[in-house]
Amino acid sequence: MSNSRAYELDRAHVFHSWSAQRKISPMVVDRAEGSHLWDDQGNRYLDFTSQLVYTNIGHQHPKVVKAIQDQAAKLCTIAPAHANAERSEAARLIAEISPEGMEYTFFTNAGAEAIEHAIRMARLHTGKIKVLTRYRSYHGGTQTALNATGDPRRWASDYGNAGIVHFRGPFLYRSEFHATTEQQECERALAHLRSTIELEGPSTIAAILLETIPGTAGIMPPPPGYLKGVRELCDEFGLVYIADEVMAGFGRTGEWLALDAHDVVPDLVTFAKGVTSGYVPLGGVMVGPTVFESFAEKPYPGGLTYSGHPLAAAAAIATIGAMREEGMVENAARVGRDIIGPTLTKMADDHACLGEVRGVGAFWALELVRDKETREPLAPYGGSSPAMDAVVAECKKNGLLPFVNYNRIHVVPALNIPDDQLQEGLQILDAALAVGDAQAKG
Amino acid sequence: MSNSRAYELDRAHVFHSWSAQRKISPMVVDRAEGSHLWDDQGNRYLDFTSQLVYTNIGHQHPKVVKAIQDQAAKLCTIAPAHANAERSEAARLIAEISPEGMEYTFFTNAGAEAIEHAIRMARLHTGKIKVLTRYRSYHGGTQTALNATGDPRRWASDYGNAGIVHFRGPFLYRSEFHATTEQQECERALAHLRSTIELEGPSTIAAILLETIPGTAGIMPPPPGYLKGVRELCDEFGLVYIADEVMAGFGRTGEWLALDAHDVVPDLVTFAKGVTSGYVPLGGVMVGPTVFESFAEKPYPGGLTYSGHPLAAAAAIATIGAMREEGMVENAARVGRDIIGPTLTKMADDHACLGEVRGVGAFWALELVRDKETREPLAPYGGSSPAMDAVVAECKKNGLLPFVNYNRIHVVPALNIPDDQLQEGLQILDAALAVGDAQAKG
Repeated sequence: MSNSRAYELDRAHVFHSWSAQRKISPMVVDRAEGSHLWDDQGNRYLDFTSQLVYTNIGHQHPKVVKAIQDQAAKLCTIAPAHANAERSEAARLIAEISPEGMEYTFFTNAGAEAIEHAIRMARLHTGKIKVLTRYRSYHGGTQTALNATGDPRRWASDYGNAGIVHFRGPFLYRSEFHATTEQQECERALAHLRSTIELEGPSTIAAILLETIPGTAGIMPPPPGYLKGVRELCDEFGLVYIADEVMAGFGRTGEWLALDAHDVVPDLVTFAKGVTSGYVPLGGVMVGPTVFESFAEKPYPGGLTYSGHPLAAAAAIATIGAMREEGMVENAARVGRDIIGPTLTKMADDHACLGEVRGVGAFWALELVRDKETREPLAPYGGSSPAMDAVVAECKKNGLLPFVNYNRIHVVPALNIPDDQLQEGLQILDAALAVGDAQAKG
Repeated sequence: MSNSRAYELDRAHVFHSWSAQRKISPMVVDRAEGSHLWDDQGNRYLDFTSQLVYTNIGHQHPKVVKAIQDQAAKLCTIAPAHANAERSEAARLIAEISPEGMEYTFFTNAGAEAIEHAIRMARLHTGKIKVLTRYRSYHGGTQTALNATGDPRRWASDYGNAGIVHFRGPFLYRSEFHATTEQQECERALAHLRSTIELEGPSTIAAILLETIPGTAGIMPPPPGYLKGVRELCDEFGLVYIADEVMAGFGRTGEWLALDAHDVVPDLVTFAKGVTSGYVPLGGVMVGPTVFESFAEKPYPGGLTYSGHPLAAAAAIATIGAMREEGMVENAARVGRDIIGPTLTKMADDHACLGEVRGVGAFWALELVRDKETREPLAPYGGSSPAMDAVVAECKKNGLLPFVNYNRIHVVPALNIPDDQLQEGLQILDAALAVGDAQAKG
């Protein structure tokens, strides 16, 4: 099919996510390989988005492509009630990656369903309904997952009836706690969470659900001690701690799970994206021993047709294998420490529009501002601006595909991006920020 | 991996759908081909389940296997914001299958998400919240889809806050309307629906959501005129008509959509399962022109990472192609009319435990009863019984894998099952029903 035909049929028949259907002009992706993709004009782009932060091993990794081909020839699908070698092996590998003592995986198709089922497990395990989640978070597109979300994408579908209560998490750059140091932010955020639990009533709360590092909402690594404090509050009040690792997990932070840097063991962990690098849709819930026991002798009242899909399981096995063999997680840690971090930090010094850079591994956010002092964002919360659009257009013009959310640009390349490509992309970004500087008080 | 190792790892690491985790002994499926699968003991089973009623083209169809392999080599994945040839072509083919005037498809990973998004579209399109669905239905495992469900699987997760109202649909064999003829059942069911709308308040209702033929809840084809009556009520009161074709669609009934036999055009159609025969997870919402316009100029506030996944789209293209080339939909119509229907009808005469058979195409239900007069089911609603278990065990012992729900056995083979295999399976079923007869008054 020609690219022009692909575009024409897209406009005639494809209803796109999060879009005004007649106002969009999607880029036709002709092909993709490693950290590059090509549009219908033959333009090559360096992919700093990992699409929606999921192609952690880059595009078209030959080992995973071959595993999918082999599994397709062997057994594409079998119902979830049966046992299947690939499903078993994927679950074994995930148990190796999961926090200690967390032996079981409930497989879903992707992240939103993982959140739906984790919340269900927590509610049935505790016999309580409310779930506490933070503002500035994203948990998925189904109704309950979207209700759990703490960003503007929730608003249109929020009927206030989902049993979700939002609290404020630590975010020193835009502190809601009037803190000036990380330690202060941590302490005050934990006090705020304790107060929220006490005011809502511990006897009404099933779970606390938290992205270990909030992703699209801003890549805000929690201060040291925060997650440990969350775990302690959950223990004190009998709440299930659900860690959402859909975006942050599977190597993104330079650890297998973002949790690994925080010395905490949640009760449930949700994952998706990186587990197969999105080559075949897959998500799931890692189930810890406490919650498991609630469904050991009586049935878990939930399921889905494609739970533990063999083709997806085969992709997960190959993806985890390739990541191990090629040291991708270690590479993500290295490039974060030695290349992205230092380069972005220097850029923050150089650019009037760059208020803060933060992140770890291959997971970084740039806060674009009009004024470093007031921290006024270059685009409003939940919106866009001509200034942000201009920075992004400059990146694309020079062959870089950036990940953009409101006033932020995220640097979220593949974990195995070659150093020279990473350097090249950061240079393009550096140059594009000059367009933002023109709009900023400097 | 050995089958014993697959079993051992399953028991150690896989958390199964709808199950008490320590009480199950899943059958290890070693391989599957066409309408057969083999367990770890080398036993061969004729698959009358199509797994969870989704492998409509049977197992390991070579054309679809090849298409998945080719697409894996070409492009496994790309984000939903972009345009992609396979996504475009799959959407074009689905538009050909969809009811007239319904040109757009919103792709999801599977059926539950399709329901979630169809409900969101209906609510935002109308500005109203309530959704009417029927008892004896299944719509998926995420919270809102499960709340919409009208069977016992909903109960554990029903907090009464989802904005769902259940009404009663037509089901003559267990009529809630004291009807004795199909026409009477139809008229009274429509009067009941009208009354429900009036009593709930039309100004509070966004949509009516109905499986065209309820599937797992009992395969109850609606009487002639019922769905047309539903459409008219939707028009009269300004409600969105959502037709759920997740199980009934894509050839199962001997039509491309079960709707095609009913001369109605809904506003939204949900689909999944058969569209790829489950080889790669895929679902979606066919979006009609009225709802489309609500999201043409302002954004649809919903989406998902893998919407229009290229690997899944390629599987859909190949599945639809194979179904067309090999006349599978026509074959399903033929076997329903010439083989399954007549054979089951005769069995109902012969067996004291067989209260009713009903269905169309490759989509049939057998009502097992203790007493044909009282119609007392052989297992209670929402439960099982030793008598049902014995019938099922007899089927399996003789190499048939039946689909079971409470007191019902469903005959839901692949659409392309060879006649001799179909006959063989029906004979095994016939013999197994003798076990049920021993428990029935006759």
